[in-house]
Amino acid sequence: MLAEMKRFLIGTPLSTDQLAHERLTNAKALAVFSSDALSSVAYATEEILFALLLAGTAALNVSMSIGAAIACLLAIVAMSYRQTIFAYPSGGGSYVVAKDNLGRYPGLIAGAALLTDYVLTVSVSIAAGAAAITSAFPQLTPYKVDMALGAILLITVANLRGVRESGSIFAVPTFVFVFSIFALLAVGLTRLLFTGLPPVSVTEAAEAQHPLTLFLLLRAFAAGCTALTGVEAISNGVQAFREPVSKNAAKTLTWMAGILMSMFLGITYLANHLDIHPVHGGETVLSQMARAIVGQGWFYYLIQAATALILFLAANTSYADFPRLASLIARDGFLPRQLTMRGDRLVFSNGIVLLGVLSGALIVHYRGNTHALLPLYAIGVFLSFTLSQSGMVLHWFRERRRDRQWLAHATVNGLGTLITGVVLVVIAWTKFAEGAWIILVLIPLIVLGFRAIHAHYLAVADDLRMPLTEAVDEVKHTIIVPVAGVNRAVAYAISYAKTLSDDVRAVHVGTDPAATEKLQLKWNQWNPGVKLTVVQSPYRSIVNPLIKYVDKIERRSRLDVVTIIIPEFVARRWWHHLLHNQSAWLLRAALHFRPHTVVVSVPYHLHH
Amino acid sequence: MLAEMKRFLIGTPLSTDQLAHERLTNAKALAVFSSDALSSVAYATEEILFALLLAGTAALNVSMSIGAAIACLLAIVAMSYRQTIFAYPSGGGSYVVAKDNLGRYPGLIAGAALLTDYVLTVSVSIAAGAAAITSAFPQLTPYKVDMALGAILLITVANLRGVRESGSIFAVPTFVFVFSIFALLAVGLTRLLFTGLPPVSVTEAAEAQHPLTLFLLLRAFAAGCTALTGVEAISNGVQAFREPVSKNAAKTLTWMAGILMSMFLGITYLANHLDIHPVHGGETVLSQMARAIVGQGWFYYLIQAATALILFLAANTSYADFPRLASLIARDGFLPRQLTMRGDRLVFSNGIVLLGVLSGALIVHYRGNTHALLPLYAIGVFLSFTLSQSGMVLHWFRERRRDRQWLAHATVNGLGTLITGVVLVVIAWTKFAEGAWIILVLIPLIVLGFRAIHAHYLAVADDLRMPLTEAVDEVKHTIIVPVAGVNRAVAYAISYAKTLSDDVRAVHVGTDPAATEKLQLKWNQWNPGVKLTVVQSPYRSIVNPLIKYVDKIERRSRLDVVTIIIPEFVARRWWHHLLHNQSAWLLRAALHFRPHTVVVSVPYHLHH
Repeated sequence: MLAEMKRFLIGTPLSTDQLAHERLTNAKALAVFSSDALSSVAYATEEILFALLLAGTAALNVSMSIGAAIACLLAIVAMSYRQTIFAYPSGGGSYVVAKDNLGRYPGLIAGAALLTDYVLTVSVSIAAGAAAITSAFPQLTPYKVDMALGAILLITVANLRGVRESGSIFAVPTFVFVFSIFALLAVGLTRLLFTGLPPVSVTEAAEAQHPLTLFLLLRAFAAGCTALTGVEAISNGVQAFREPVSKNAAKTLTWMAGILMSMFLGITYLANHLDIHPVHGGETVLSQMARAIVGQGWFYYLIQAATALILFLAANTSYADFPRLASLIARDGFLPRQLTMRGDRLVFSNGIVLLGVLSGALIVHYRGNTHALLPLYAIGVFLSFTLSQSGMVLHWFRERRRDRQWLAHATVNGLGTLITGVVLVVIAWTKFAEGAWIILVLIPLIVLGFRAIHAHYLAVADDLRMPLTEAVDEVKHTIIVPVAGVNRAVAYAISYAKTLSDDVRAVHVGTDPAATEKLQLKWNQWNPGVKLTVVQSPYRSIVNPLIKYVDKIERRSRLDVVTIIIPEFVARRWWHHLLHNQSAWLLRAALHFRPHTVVVSVPYHLHH
Repeated sequence: MLAEMKRFLIGTPLSTDQLAHERLTNAKALAVFSSDALSSVAYATEEILFALLLAGTAALNVSMSIGAAIACLLAIVAMSYRQTIFAYPSGGGSYVVAKDNLGRYPGLIAGAALLTDYVLTVSVSIAAGAAAITSAFPQLTPYKVDMALGAILLITVANLRGVRESGSIFAVPTFVFVFSIFALLAVGLTRLLFTGLPPVSVTEAAEAQHPLTLFLLLRAFAAGCTALTGVEAISNGVQAFREPVSKNAAKTLTWMAGILMSMFLGITYLANHLDIHPVHGGETVLSQMARAIVGQGWFYYLIQAATALILFLAANTSYADFPRLASLIARDGFLPRQLTMRGDRLVFSNGIVLLGVLSGALIVHYRGNTHALLPLYAIGVFLSFTLSQSGMVLHWFRERRRDRQWLAHATVNGLGTLITGVVLVVIAWTKFAEGAWIILVLIPLIVLGFRAIHAHYLAVADDLRMPLTEAVDEVKHTIIVPVAGVNRAVAYAISYAKTLSDDVRAVHVGTDPAATEKLQLKWNQWNPGVKLTVVQSPYRSIVNPLIKYVDKIERRSRLDVVTIIIPEFVARRWWHHLLHNQSAWLLRAALHFRPHTVVVSVPYHLHH
């Protein structure tokens, strides 16, 4: 029944040779790889405004300068990643680039940062998607966490079924989102220019609780850096492009960066001029803006729907990235090997389930509050940016004899390293108390975990390695059959034991002298050709006297292995097991850790 | 470490020959066996008053007539049980008497009634004991449930250690309780006669919500019948008395009935004349009375302490009765056999733990409210009274040739049957909606459970029975060793398998053609003298292709048994197991229900 339900949810198994890759046109690739990056405009501006709000609503107009700084940062990072695309046409994720160029530990740090990041991408995007829905339908606000968990469950099951990287399906919401945002911006800017727009303050103007210090400005900048999450996606998936892969991927990356930058700057500019205030746990900035510009009609609902959809798609990309990266790290022996195995539908099922559980737990813990999750988010992104870019600098340096332009390339990536490194420090510093510390503690712990797992696998491999010239030894052993009475189950076990060896001993642990005597008589009468030894147990324990007996036999006969054959009933209904003595189970548990001991249950299947 | 903690809590094991019985003097026996019966005066009067309160505080004075009726009932039941004591000097519990005289099902019904009853005795007595404490210290009221659970835990552990039926310890609280109640009654009656006592109404006089109908009177009577719980205890434990056992037991029963009747009537009379109103969840009637008569001094606290202690002792008697009865029923094959086994300290540990868990669950469910638990209580008591008495009537009829006084005896027991039967109907009718229905549903369900268990045991015994003349057959079998690679664990399993049989086959389930080819080469180079078969698994499952292979081998070679030897790692830390593939475990689970299949794990103990 469980198997049938699994079939229904996940689908029939796929054979290994069905594993194949679809090549995508640039437009489809843009849709597939950019949902994470583009969707971040749904919350990045809002985060800048939240940070500035501390200095009062009057300070919100600084957001435009901060937005411009972030746009410059985006341009540098995009340029930097274009180079990675050309250097790693087979796909240059930060883990691979850092491991190849900087060594094992930088690679593992990048890997740990990326894994936490993918989990956060799912949680943040789903939470923001749910916020887009509750902004349009405030009456759904109490069900925000439930909706978010439902979405995670749906995406998890869909990915377990194996969502092929099918651009056609993903293209629709991405393009609808991009076009509707551009349309909104165009209408907004036109109205601003010609007719003017009234300011939309959902909340009252707030007094400054804090002066507008450099720290606060940096904090707002750090908050806005979440706009850059997902920029590296194209460089991971170069192989999905058509030939010439690198050229197409680089072109798409440039397009994506351009679209992202325009949307982000446009939204920030309009939010500024409309005097929009962010509201904790309330309507999103983007929703307020859309309502002010186009009114609460069909177009408003289209924008909210497209926003929610692209955010859910952004979560979906992590469902491809997390299991793939986890399987790479597991293949290198730093994560449990089970993560490398493909499930029935050829996807890394264990990684998918793990991602669903972790991101769902975060949603529950933070009650689906995007604003609370975001400080944890950006730090992992910029850590992997910095490691990957610095790896590229070393890469160009190594290539210096083969590539005449190596210095130019190294300079671009060096600039990228420097800038992203500085931003990383800024984020860690300004967002430390808000939650960045969790990630700063977590990443080293994950790396320590990687190390412990690797050490174990190496030790086990060492333990198991053997020269192929080694002969197979004869093993000296005896068989012991504990018996409680004379019955069919025991007879079956005894005849089985006699087939395996000529040296079979039956042993009975007696707790009641009268019953023991009766058993001895019955045994002699039956005479199965095996001697019965009786061990008395004054304290009524079955396990301890038996183990003592086994110890004695082993010592006396200098055996290599002792085999204990336990006659066991297999009942037909689960509750029947409760009606039988669990001695067999106890015995097996007690002997599990005894060296040179093999425990065999010979199951006698009851007919009733 | 777990074993050490068990030693500390439970004590060192006792040997079976230390099982012995202490013989008690009549005074000690009175203390041991009567705590359940005598302690019921702590709540019986209160229950009558609660029932009458519906008809307004003015109706409370009817309680004296009801008390008198219950005293008559007690006299009849005690006379009836005196006869049981003489007829069953070896101990005549209702289960034994009903089973012997009425047959299997009446016996099982009495057994089910008694088992539920013992659980309720614990819950009711502990809850009432906690109420005695919170009456004296109202600030402890919020911790009532915690105190009750703590008391259950303590009594459970004490019984697992094996509380010997040591009268000396039990005698103290029982006698303190009896003497202090008599002293209280004496002071109260004296003051009433000579100086008069002011009425103590903790609450205001209440209006009648309901007329004083016959139904309400019967309900008050039914509520008061809880005073009779525990009267049968002496007839169960005749063997604990000194010779002549029956005579001593009967004398003690008469004493007990006399003391119980005087205390109950005295308390009811005084409650009446002091105009005491019962308070839901508040101070008990007995506590109000004591405070009114002797003031809140040391004597008041002594009475409360003695009440709490005798109630806890009453719970303790169920800890002897429940496991003993459960073991009798289990020995007859109607309950799981594990209930017949004596633990380390010679007590029926499983029954003790079961009783603790069940009564604790009741306390939690009813939040330690005595008044809510009591309607469930009396019905089981009177059901077992009726069955036991009617069994005695048949007993005397069968003895009619040997006993010249059989008719007199049968008449006494017949009167007992009639009266207790009528009371049973009254309780079932008047308390039905308040909770008696639960017991009326539960008892048949328990009896059905008994029947199912018995049927299973009979079927299994039938299944396992074999003639002792049956020879031990030779078994035709083969050994299959699934291998994932060439390593020490596999080498160990192969050499073990070769020791057991000349017919050993190694099989590899391949999911990756390149790895499979490499393994085949390594195997040939190693050459352990066992042929390796490769089974391809396009769907990457290990278990299914292996089972198909086993099916094929079994069919082709017409085998009796297939033995599958699985090389398995035993890691040294629990979390290491998470790092290894659980195929061995899955395989064992999948093969567990396959007939004629023995699965052997050959453990290779890792050094790391």
